[in-house]
Order: sequence, then C-alpha cells, then structure tokens
Amino acid sequence: MLAFENDYSEGAHDKVLRRLLETNMEQLSGYGTDHYCESAKDKIRKACSCPQADVCFLAGGTQTNQIVISTMLKPYEGVIAAETGHVSTHEAGAVECAGHKVLNLPQEEGKISAGVLDGWLHSFYEDENHEHMVFPGIVYISHPTEYGTLYTKSELAGLSAVCSRYKIPLYLDGARLGYGLAADGTDVTLKDVAEYCDVFYIGGTKVGALCGEAVVFTKANMPPHFMTMVKQRGALLAKGRLLGIQFDALFTDGLYFEIGRNAIVAADRLKRILKEKGYEFYIKSPTNQIFVVLENRKLEQLKREVAVSFWEKKDEDHTVVRFATSWATRMEDVEKLAALL
Amino acid sequence: MLAFENDYSEGAHDKVLRRLLETNMEQLSGYGTDHYCESAKDKIRKACSCPQADVCFLAGGTQTNQIVISTMLKPYEGVIAAETGHVSTHEAGAVECAGHKVLNLPQEEGKISAGVLDGWLHSFYEDENHEHMVFPGIVYISHPTEYGTLYTKSELAGLSAVCSRYKIPLYLDGARLGYGLAADGTDVTLKDVAEYCDVFYIGGTKVGALCGEAVVFTKANMPPHFMTMVKQRGALLAKGRLLGIQFDALFTDGLYFEIGRNAIVAADRLKRILKEKGYEFYIKSPTNQIFVVLENRKLEQLKREVAVSFWEKKDEDHTVVRFATSWATRMEDVEKLAALL
Amino acid sequence: MLAFENDYSEGAHDKVLRRLLETNMEQLSGYGTDHYCESAKDKIRKACSCPQADVCFLAGGTQTNQIVISTMLKPYEGVIAAETGHVSTHEAGAVECAGHKVLNLPQEEGKISAGVLDGWLHSFYEDENHEHMVFPGIVYISHPTEYGTLYTKSELAGLSAVCSRYKIPLYLDGARLGYGLAADGTDVTLKDVAEYCDVFYIGGTKVGALCGEAVVFTKANMPPHFMTMVKQRGALLAKGRLLGIQFDALFTDGLYFEIGRNAIVAADRLKRILKEKGYEFYIKSPTNQIFVVLENRKLEQLKREVAVSFWEKKDEDHTVVRFATSWATRMEDVEKLAALL
Amino acid sequence: MLAFENDYSEGAHDKVLRRLLETNMEQLSGYGTDHYCESAKDKIRKACSCPQADVCFLAGGTQTNQIVISTMLKPYEGVIAAETGHVSTHEAGAVECAGHKVLNLPQEEGKISAGVLDGWLHSFYEDENHEHMVFPGIVYISHPTEYGTLYTKSELAGLSAVCSRYKIPLYLDGARLGYGLAADGTDVTLKDVAEYCDVFYIGGTKVGALCGEAVVFTKANMPPHFMTMVKQRGALLAKGRLLGIQFDALFTDGLYFEIGRNAIVAADRLKRILKEKGYEFYIKSPTNQIFVVLENRKLEQLKREVAVSFWEKKDEDHTVVRFATSWATRMEDVEKLAALL
Repeated sequence: MLAFENDYSEGAHDKVLRRLLETNMEQLSGYGTDHYCESAKDKIRKACSCPQADVCFLAGGTQTNQIVISTMLKPYEGVIAAETGHVSTHEAGAVECAGHKVLNLPQEEGKISAGVLDGWLHSFYEDENHEHMVFPGIVYISHPTEYGTLYTKSELAGLSAVCSRYKIPLYLDGARLGYGLAADGTDVTLKDVAEYCDVFYIGGTKVGALCGEAVVFTKANMPPHFMTMVKQRGALLAKGRLLGIQFDALFTDGLYFEIGRNAIVAADRLKRILKEKGYEFYIKSPTNQIFVVLENRKLEQLKREVAVSFWEKKDEDHTVVRFATSWATRMEDVEKLAALL
Repeated sequence: MLAFENDYSEGAHDKVLRRLLETNMEQLSGYGTDHYCESAKDKIRKACSCPQADVCFLAGGTQTNQIVISTMLKPYEGVIAAETGHVSTHEAGAVECAGHKVLNLPQEEGKISAGVLDGWLHSFYEDENHEHMVFPGIVYISHPTEYGTLYTKSELAGLSAVCSRYKIPLYLDGARLGYGLAADGTDVTLKDVAEYCDVFYIGGTKVGALCGEAVVFTKANMPPHFMTMVKQRGALLAKGRLLGIQFDALFTDGLYFEIGRNAIVAADRLKRILKEKGYEFYIKSPTNQIFVVLENRKLEQLKREVAVSFWEKKDEDHTVVRFATSWATRMEDVEKLAALL
Repeated sequence: MLAFENDYSEGAHDKVLRRLLETNMEQLSGYGTDHYCESAKDKIRKACSCPQADVCFLAGGTQTNQIVISTMLKPYEGVIAAETGHVSTHEAGAVECAGHKVLNLPQEEGKISAGVLDGWLHSFYEDENHEHMVFPGIVYISHPTEYGTLYTKSELAGLSAVCSRYKIPLYLDGARLGYGLAADGTDVTLKDVAEYCDVFYIGGTKVGALCGEAVVFTKANMPPHFMTMVKQRGALLAKGRLLGIQFDALFTDGLYFEIGRNAIVAADRLKRILKEKGYEFYIKSPTNQIFVVLENRKLEQLKREVAVSFWEKKDEDHTVVRFATSWATRMEDVEKLAALL
Repeated sequence: MLAFENDYSEGAHDKVLRRLLETNMEQLSGYGTDHYCESAKDKIRKACSCPQADVCFLAGGTQTNQIVISTMLKPYEGVIAAETGHVSTHEAGAVECAGHKVLNLPQEEGKISAGVLDGWLHSFYEDENHEHMVFPGIVYISHPTEYGTLYTKSELAGLSAVCSRYKIPLYLDGARLGYGLAADGTDVTLKDVAEYCDVFYIGGTKVGALCGEAVVFTKANMPPHFMTMVKQRGALLAKGRLLGIQFDALFTDGLYFEIGRNAIVAADRLKRILKEKGYEFYIKSPTNQIFVVLENRKLEQLKREVAVSFWEKKDEDHTVVRFATSWATRMEDVEKLAALL
C-alpha cells in the first residue's frame, strides 16, 4: 500500500528521533523549562531574525489555534478567517468551544485578500448596530493554505497593513510552513513571516516531528501568564523536553528547511506525472498538497493500492482527492504511484 | 419625534400592565412557581392545541436563543441557521459564548429551504472527514424572519420533515410571532407552529409585554433540570410572576392575536403610502417591518423628525432603513409620517 | 397564609409601579439608552457621592454576579469568596459556567476577614507552584451576607486595603443592600460602599422593584464594550426602560432608603417576639433575615399557616429556618405570626 | 545535581523508545486509528480483565481529567473531589474552564471516604434548594493520591457502592497508577480498579512514557462522538501512533508493572534512610512520593546538590518538601542522596 493520503504517516525524521534518544536519560526540569527548550527557542528566534520574539511549544495544530486565538481575544471578539480556513471547518468547533465566533470571509484559492479584509472591517465599524455584533479581534490565515496555496510577500504585507490600521493582530497558521518556505517561486521567507505577522506557528507535526508546533509571538506579545492558560486548557506537557528537543534538532543546521524541500521535490515530480497523464487539477498548488479530480471508478481502483484523501464530491461521477507528499516521501514511491496512475 | 425605529419603543399593553398592578401585592412563590405562571402555561398550551407541551418563560430573545440552543445541543454539535439569522449576526456571539458554532446556510429573503437544508445535511454525513467537523444538532429559523418575511405552512412542513429524517430538532424564534400570525395571506397558525416545531418561542418583548418570551417545548421535550440550567445562565428571575402575569394577560381573550393585528394594519397603510410615493422597497415583507432604500440626503432630512433603523449601506448615496410598526402604533402617527415622506 | 419565606413575594413598591404606568406610552430608545436610565444613573451617582462612577442595570442577582465577575476576570483568574457566599453555593455554578473558579475562603457569620484574605493571598504568591493554580482576580463579598450579617466600616476598609495591596478589585453583592444600609447600629453608608469597593450592585429585585440590579463601577472602571458582553450573555433587555424607570423611582426622594427601613422595623419586632417566646436563634442578624432553630414538629405545624424558608437540617429533630421581612411586610402580619409562634 | 523533584525528569523507558524507533518509518493512518493503537487497547483490556472496555489515549493528565470530566457531565453537574485533589488545586482551573464546578469534600491523607461521600450526597438531595445548586455528576479520586497514599480494595468498593446507589460514575485518576499497583501491602490490582471504577486512566507520562495516558471506560461507556470532542478540545494528535506504540510497549511482557516496582524499591530504601537519620515525615506514603519536613536552613543547603519539590511552608522555620522516585531512579543516586542527608 502506498501512502499519499497526508503528510503525517511516518514518525519523526531520523535526526529528530536520534536527539530524543541521545538525551533520553538526562534529568531535566519539567513543563518546558529545560535547556533544550531554551536552545530551541534561541535557534528559532535566530532563524526568524526576531530576537525579541516570545516562543512556546504546543503539541498539535488545532490545540495551537485554539489556545493562541482564545488567549489573544477579548470575550466580545471573534477571529476573522477564510470560510475554508482550518479553524472554520476542520477543528470540530474548537474556537467556538473556547467561546469565540469564527467570522468568515470569502476566499480565493484558500486565501483572503487585503482588499476584502479592509472592506469587511470598514463595513463592520460603519454598521450602526455593530455593538450587537461580534467584534473582529484577530485575523487568521494559513500559509500554505488548506489548498496548498501560498501568499506572496506583497499579499502578506497588504494584510499586515490592514491589520495594523485596525489594530488587530495577524496570526498565521504554519502547520505546513516548512513546505511553504521550500516551494519553488515563493518570495516569502521565515523572516518575512515574522515581520508581517504578530504571531504565527511553525508546524512540527507535519514537518519531521512526532508532534509539536512552535508558536512565535513576534512582538514579545505573548499574553501574560500564558503558561497558566496553556495548563488550564490541558495543553502543558510535563515532559516539555519532548517538544524542545525536537525543535532544537529541527532548527540545527537548517534541517527544517532541508526536509521541507524533500516534499516539494516529490510533489513536483508527481504533478508532472499527473499533468502528462492528463489528470484534471482541482486547484494549482505550489506546495506538497495536490488536488485532483478523479472519476469515481478510477478512484475505487486506485484506493486498492494507494491511500489518498477524500476532499469533496465534485459531482455524481467525480471526486476531488488530495495526494500529499512529505519530508518522508521516497521518490521510488512516487514512481510506483506513477505506474498506477 | 415620530418613532418607527423598532417595535419596542413603548412599555406594555395597557391590559398587561393593569394585570401587573392588580396582582401586585399578592404574595406569590418565587422562580416561576406561582399560579399565574401555571395559568399562563395552560392558556398557551390551549392556544397551541398542544396539551403535552412544556412551557417556560424567559426575559429576552437573545437569552432565549442562547439557552434553548445550548441546552438542547450536545457539546460536539452546532446550530444550523440562515446566514442572516439573528443568532448568526446580531446576538454578539451568544451561541459561541455558550460553546457552540452557528453553521450558516444560504438563505432567500431570510428563509432557509428544505431543499438546501437537506442537501447540506446529506453532504455533511457523506463527507469522510465529518468527525473532525461540528455536527448539526438543531435547526434555527425565525418567523417572521429578520427581513419580516414568513414561511408558508408547506415550507414549514418541509423543513420539519427533513429535520425528522435526520433526527434534528427544529427550533423557531418567534420574537415577532404575533405579527407573523396576524399577517395578511399567511396560512400558518400557532397550532401549525406547534405541530411542525420541536421547540419555539412566543415573543412578548416585541408584542405587548415589558419583557418576556414564552418557550414551548412541543414534545414534552424540555431538557431535564432546565430550571437549574436557566439559573446557571443567570436567567432565572426571582419574581417569575413578572413573566407569568404578563403572558397570562396576553393569552386572555385573544389579546396577543388582537394586538398583533394592530401592527399589521398600520404597516399595510404605511406600505401603501410608500408605494404611492414611489419609494423603493428593499424586500417585500408581509409583516410589521418595512425595508426601504433611501437617498442619504432624504434620510438625513427625515431623521430630524422620525426615528428609523439603519439596516445597511446600499451604496455611496443610498441606505437601507427599516420602518417598524407595533401593537402600540397609532394610525395618526402613520399619517404624520406620510406627510413627511 | 402568611408569607415570611423571602423578600420577593410581592411585586413592586407602589411608587415604582406607578412610574412604570405613567411613562408607559412614552416612546423611548432601546437597550438602556433612554433618558430614564440616564436620570437613574445620575441619581445613583449622587447617592453614592461618586460622580465618576459607571452605572449599568441588569435584571437579577445571579446574572449580575456572573457578568461582573466574568467580565472583570482574566481567563486564568478566579473569584475569591466566602465558602458560604451566594456565588459559591446557590447560583447553580454560574461563575464556573462562565469558565472561572470560585476560590473559597473560610468565613465567620458569612463574612471574610481582611486577615484571612491577606494570609491566603500571601500564601498563594509564596507557593512555588502557583503558576499551576487559579490566580485570584477579584474578591466577592455580600453585604448583608447570606446570613443577614453586616460588615463594619472598618472591616470594609480592611478588605479594601488588602485588595489594593494585591491590585485585586473588591466586589460587593448588594442584593439586599437597602436592608443593610437601614439596619440599626451599622456605620456603613452607601458612600462608604462606593469608596471601599471597586464595583458593587444595589439590589432592586429584593428591595422594591419587579426586577433589576444597579451595578456601580466606582472607579469609572467598567470593562470596555461592557454592553456587548451583556448582550453576548443574553442579559441586555430591549426595553432597558424597565430597569431605568424603576431605579429612577427608587432613587427619587430617598425611596430606596425609606422602604429598606420598613423591613428592618418589621424584623426587629419579630426578633423581639421570638426572643420573648424563647426561640433559639441560629445566628444574630441585624437585618431582615432571621434564622431560627425549630423543632421539626413545630415547623410542620407552623408551615400550615406560614411560609418560611428551609435553611438546613440541624439534627434529626431540628431544622434551621429563615423568616424574612421586606419593604412590603405589614406590621399586622408580623402580629399574626406572633400569635402563631 | 541529583534529581528527586518529580517522576518525570527523564524521557521514556528504553524499551518504549526503542519501539518508537523500530516503527518510525512505518506508514500508519492518523488520529489513533493505526494498528498499534488497536494492539495497545487490546493489551490494556486484557491487563484489566475488562474485554468490553473502551480505551483511548490522550497526551497528559490535566488534559485527560478535563476531557473525561467535561464529556461525562451534563451542563448542570459538577465533579466531586477531595479538596486536595489534583483537579481542585493544581490544574489552573481546567475543569472550571470547561464550565463545571469542582465540589470539594473533606479528605484524610488525600482520600475521600464512602461515608463522607454518602453523607454529602444525602444532604444534597435533602436540601430543598438543591435545584439552585450544582448537581453532583461524577466522583473523582486519585490513586495514588496527591499525597502518595492508596485506597484499599474495601475503600474502593465502598466508594463504588455509594456511586452506584446515586447513579454517579466513579472516576480514578491514575497518573501514578503504576506506582500504586507496585506498592508493598496494597490489595488493589488493576482488575479491581477496572471493576470498581466506571472510568479511569493509566498514567504513562510519569511511568515510563514520553507522554500519554490511557483512558479506560470500563462499562463500554465512552461518550458518543468522543473523538470529535477530543478534537474540539485540541487534544487529538495527528500522529496518534505516538501514544499507541508507547502503551503497546508498556503493556508488553508486563513492562508497566515491572518499572513501577523500581520506583517503589528506591522509595523504600530512601524512606529507611530518612527514618534512620531521624527526619520527620509529613505523611506516611507507601508509594514513590515521600513528604518530609525540613528545616529551612537544611533545605537551602540540600538544594545546592539535590533537586526536590517545594510542597508547602510548615512554619517560619520549616518547609514540607517532596522527594520522588520513579521508573528511572538509580539506586546509586539514592545512596548519594543518603550521604547528603
């Protein structure tokens, strides 16, 4: 069985796991206060060219979105997100469970534009009844988006400018940031992300770690008593080392960037194959997620030998599926898949 | 100053207030356990032809929506509503504050259709990732809607049938139910509402009471320990009599239906005037809310002598406003308004 | 049947109800923006000698506690209260429902002392694990307490000083404040309450109103967008006039203080009777709540003709009951009760 | 520096880590649906002699307590716990953050007794005002407790009987269960725990795993759509394998029980040393946590070479501290500590 259904089918990158092994019997203090966590934070600050950043580690993506959003919002505020955003659709209502509304904006290819955002905010404050409505309190974007697409540097700058004008922080979900930064043609660097966003996270779970996301508050704007709120939301690991050591490994000698590249190279090869064989792309994605329209018959046949992700029904006879590559994808598996397509 | 901005500008209907006065010094037990509450519940059950109904009284509309929805949902469920529904837009996120998502459906004239609802539910359960999504747990409609429009009996029956099929309760927000039932041309009676809905409320605040909404659980399906949950949400009045006595008066000798009619007669007269004078209607409403597109200049001029409600900006030069009549509207004020238009 | 079970058995004081009647058909703006609300706020500010206070009206006591506490706390904070405090015991978990812990302190006669509070706060910050605990964020006291007892001015000053030192606001639940201020021997005035507390509420429901409590933020420290949060919690009445007009009447010509006195005079007479007849007091209360230990047999007999409140089982054969007088108690009913005792 | 401050200073047991390494590149399905999770669940069911149990894996203890308690309670219910219980004190209000009250019972040595529980429940239902109070909905105990003490089989049976009578589930927090089961003199087996509790968890974080707790619903009583609620609370790991593989290793060839024993043997040796040297024990604990009263001067001196946990100030000159052993404690370190004491 070939696995192309997602980018979290394997465990951790060998170098990450090896570091866990090497440090395993060291006695370290708990709750993320150990020196590996400190070292990892330093390396991340450097990689972001953001020496003043507050960094903290959490275990997963939905957890991170829920905690960052709910601790940065005031009770009367909600989070603005694309209607296709992960927080809007695939987190089982985690934001609402924490008491806040997701305010949906129309999107294009998974992205929201500075113009649309500006228009929405302008209308909100112009509405004479807005005191009876949920106030916008943070803007959520994902990069890459849920459709594998990427913002350009200029688009990020535009969103950032609108957010600044309305004094609303810009939050970037980087669950797959490693793949976004490694994509061909992108002009967005990690430093740009840190510059344009007030807070963002660097995804580990999908990019080489067993689990873990590194949240970066770029303006030293981590909410006071954040650790207590993390604990209160059940997300504080006693063995915080588990996250610190992994990120320390990922940000040693550029490993995070290197393994992101592997997914891109494999995805590019797969896209070429799909194109050559005449498959219809549902959307053009420059990263490691590839959305293809398949005939249901073909899909049934393929599923016997390849795991792919259901995305949505297109019509009676066609389904949109997702192929995903990752840091762990072997080129030989891509070639095997090619033979089946 | 003429007041057409809403249907809650005056206090209570004279007969309602008089009953409060007459009973004022009677010593009654607290928290809605008095005999006036019992009497009012009986009269409402009779008016609904629904002898098995559980009835309870709450103070306001948003409070009622929040409590009914949150006590009927399981933690992993959300409420389906039109994207223009009151719970979606103008309750400051009360549903989300209680931990649940509002799942928005497209609407027409403020209404959702059985077909759209069915399609949405079908897609939800067909989506292979739906366990990562918010489950649909209750369907919210308003009648009249936020645009003053009304469901037909057949539309209600259709929604009810879809809800039954998916085992999801149908909840009707009747903040202005008195005006909906009194509208010309409607084929929906209070009995129909009780038949097709699993729970609904009869609005008092906007139809003759100082405050108060009567929630009707038509299948004897009030959640267990509802009173404790009402208390827990801060909504249990010590002097429950305030609500019971008012609804007892409203449902004595058909007062509720009679005063609903006053608003409709006044609104019909106003619509005729507006039409004659060539005003553009934003939407065709058969009830007491009238949505008109005004030139901004005209609006500024009018606002010096008439209070109307801002609805939304239409374009640079035009604004949609709402005129509302009520149980208290005097025909002489409608004529004064006519002279100004 | 004689009613001594609580202080909310009747409707509203005649002068309050009459004002509702007189103003009933005036067309007023909604949501508490009308001129009666403004007038009532002004009169309250004057009565408190606190011109800078933010005042707002809510419908009931539990609602007020829930909203004030939850909007003044940060997510990682809880409310300190006596273990017998209303928020600790008889609000069905309203504070917890809003996401916050009630941190219980030991009490004497329903009161917490500055010394105990200081000790608790000192220990909290000295505890090396306090970042894993709920932070103290507000101190809740009630005056009169749930046992009808009163703080002295010096006790209030002491609590206030501790709160200031730890930068924690002091909140006073004045559900029965009118009876506390009118008690014999108290040295606490409304002005003192305003001086020593950061926020408190003046109870209307139990002191002459149909419903309603007036929240006073004495340092102009109402949380930003408080109205939106009131709406979000389902507590914003469309007809805010209902609360404003009642408080306007209560604070006209000293009515609130005058009717508070009626309850005290009646309670004093009743206490003398009980003492003369040799009844055992459970606690010595200077206000309108009288706690007496009754033999169960005597209680059963009494309950045929008098409504009293169950407080707690004392032992197999004895029960603690509460007799309450109010603004509405007639001396002739006290004498009738005397004859039965 | 010697580390005796807690039982989570090292990483994972060598056999656990090795399994992660061996399986690392296997491609597995996400969210805990892989075959290692299935295998681990089977082994746990067998070890519990509880074939019908629903088992699921979560990452940490506070998270587990929060999710189990909040998904098993109805909105109007709270959790009964010892006033010293972990959920009462050291989880930063996680239960309240999820909307529920912790109802505290008095304890002895960290334990609640069947008699006290029965008395509390009896009083609750006898209280005529209990509909205004938080209903008891689940009973929380920890075994070992926060003081390292253990229930006897007969005590567990007693609590279980009371819970059954009141139809309230009994929940056991087994963060350190491995150490409780391995203690000398205990008559409680894992099978007993499964028999007497409705739900409990087997702690991994403190007993050999990098992270992870195994929740066992012993009556096949896992709440419907539990996985969705886990996701909604941010606790669903994409790589569920991380937990499944670790528990599979821990429950292979009795590893969990074997490593629990190591902590006990080390603790017993340390207790003997402390006794011989005349140290005062704060409480008598049969498990891996040892509470000792130290002079502050002695503590300062010791802290230069040994990490211990602050527990509480005893008086001006003395502090209660905790020494903890674990699966990883080496006897040579105990002897080094002995030399310093």
